[in-house]
Amino acid sequence: MLVRVGRTSDARQRLLDAALELFSERPYSSVGVAEISSRAGVQKGSFYHFFLSKEALALAVIDRHWEAQCEEWLRIFRQGDAVLPRLRALFRATADRQVAAQVGTGSVTGCMFGNLALEVSSQDGPMREQLQTIFDEQISLIEAQLDEAVASGEIALEDVHGAARSIVAQLEGLVLFAKLFNDPSQLDSLWANSMRLLGVQTAASEAAASA
Amino acid sequence: MLVRVGRTSDARQRLLDAALELFSERPYSSVGVAEISSRAGVQKGSFYHFFLSKEALALAVIDRHWEAQCEEWLRIFRQGDAVLPRLRALFRATADRQVAAQVGTGSVTGCMFGNLALEVSSQDGPMREQLQTIFDEQISLIEAQLDEAVASGEIALEDVHGAARSIVAQLEGLVLFAKLFNDPSQLDSLWANSMRLLGVQTAASEAAASA
Repeated sequence: MLVRVGRTSDARQRLLDAALELFSERPYSSVGVAEISSRAGVQKGSFYHFFLSKEALALAVIDRHWEAQCEEWLRIFRQGDAVLPRLRALFRATADRQVAAQVGTGSVTGCMFGNLALEVSSQDGPMREQLQTIFDEQISLIEAQLDEAVASGEIALEDVHGAARSIVAQLEGLVLFAKLFNDPSQLDSLWANSMRLLGVQTAASEAAASA
Repeated sequence: MLVRVGRTSDARQRLLDAALELFSERPYSSVGVAEISSRAGVQKGSFYHFFLSKEALALAVIDRHWEAQCEEWLRIFRQGDAVLPRLRALFRATADRQVAAQVGTGSVTGCMFGNLALEVSSQDGPMREQLQTIFDEQISLIEAQLDEAVASGEIALEDVHGAARSIVAQLEGLVLFAKLFNDPSQLDSLWANSMRLLGVQTAASEAAASA
C-alpha cells in the first residue's frame, strides 16, 4: 500500500514537472496531454487519474510555480534593514534565473506567467483569473516593500501602488526582450530603470544597494 | 483580365486581413490555414496560390502591421517643435487603440508583436528575427526623439538608448496588463512612468505636454 501511494504521488509529481518544463518551452496551446504524459513517463490513460484536463493540470502548475516564486520573494524581502538592497537582490535573482535557463536549455525561457497571460487572455477562464491574481499579488508584495521604504525615509513617493505596478510592468517588458533576443543581459537595466521610476538618484541608490 | 487581377489581389488582401484579426484574437499556434481561409472567404486550396505556408502569411501580416504602425509613429513624430508632447500623443494613440479594440471586439487585444514574440521566441526562425527587428526599430525611433529632446535641452539624459529601451519595455509590460485584465486604463500611467524614466518632473512635463 505504501509503495502504491509512493508511485501514485510520484506520477502526479512527474506530470507537474513535465508540464512546467513544456509550458516554459512552448506555447500552452501547442502542448497536448499525450506529450506531457510521454515526457513524464506516465501512460496517457493514467493522466486522467490525476487531472481532469490539461487546464486543471495547468492551474496546478501555475499555482505551484507561483508558490515557489513567492517564497523566494519573501525570503529575499526578509533580508537586511533597508528596502532598496532587497529589491536589487530580487532583480538579480530574476536575471540569474534567466541566465540559468539559458545555460541549461540554450534558451531564455522568460516568465511563465507573462507567456501564459498573453496566450490565454483572449478569453475569460480560470487560468486568466489565476494569472490576474498572481500579478496583483506581485504588485502588492512590491508595494509593501515600497511602503516600508517610504515609512523609513529611504524613498519619497506619492503613488506607491502606481510605482509598484510600473516596476512589475518594466520587469515583464524586459523579460519579454530577454526571451525574444535570447539575451539575459536585456535585464541589466532593470535596477537603474526601477530606481528612476522611484525617483531615486542612481548614484545614491548604488550606495544604498551596496551598503 | 482586369477583373481577374482585381479578384486575385482581393483574395490575398482578405487572407491578410483575416490573419491579422485571428492572430490578434488568439495564439498564433492555435490558428490554422483552414480557419484563416474560411474567415477570408477563400477556398483552402487557393490559400497556397498566395502564400507558401501559414508562416509566410504571418511574416507578411507582421510586416504590413508594422509598416502601418510605423507610419503612424512617424506622423505623430512630425508634429510640433517639442518632443515630450509627441511622446504623449504616441502613448495616447496606443491607449486609444486598445480602447477601440475593446469597444469593437469586447477584448483588449494587446500588442500583436508582443503576443507573437512570447509565442515564437522558444525557437529560432524568421518570425523571431522579424520581431527582433521591429522592436529594435521601435527603440531606435524613440531614441531619435530622445536625442532631439536632449539636443534642444528639453531633457537631460546620459543613457539615451537605455531610456528608449525602458520606455518600450514599460509600454509592452503595461499592454500585457491591459490585455490580462481586459482593462485599457492599465495604460493610464504610461506617461507619468515614462517621464520618471526620463528624469522629468511630472509637473514640468505636464506643462510641456500641454504647451
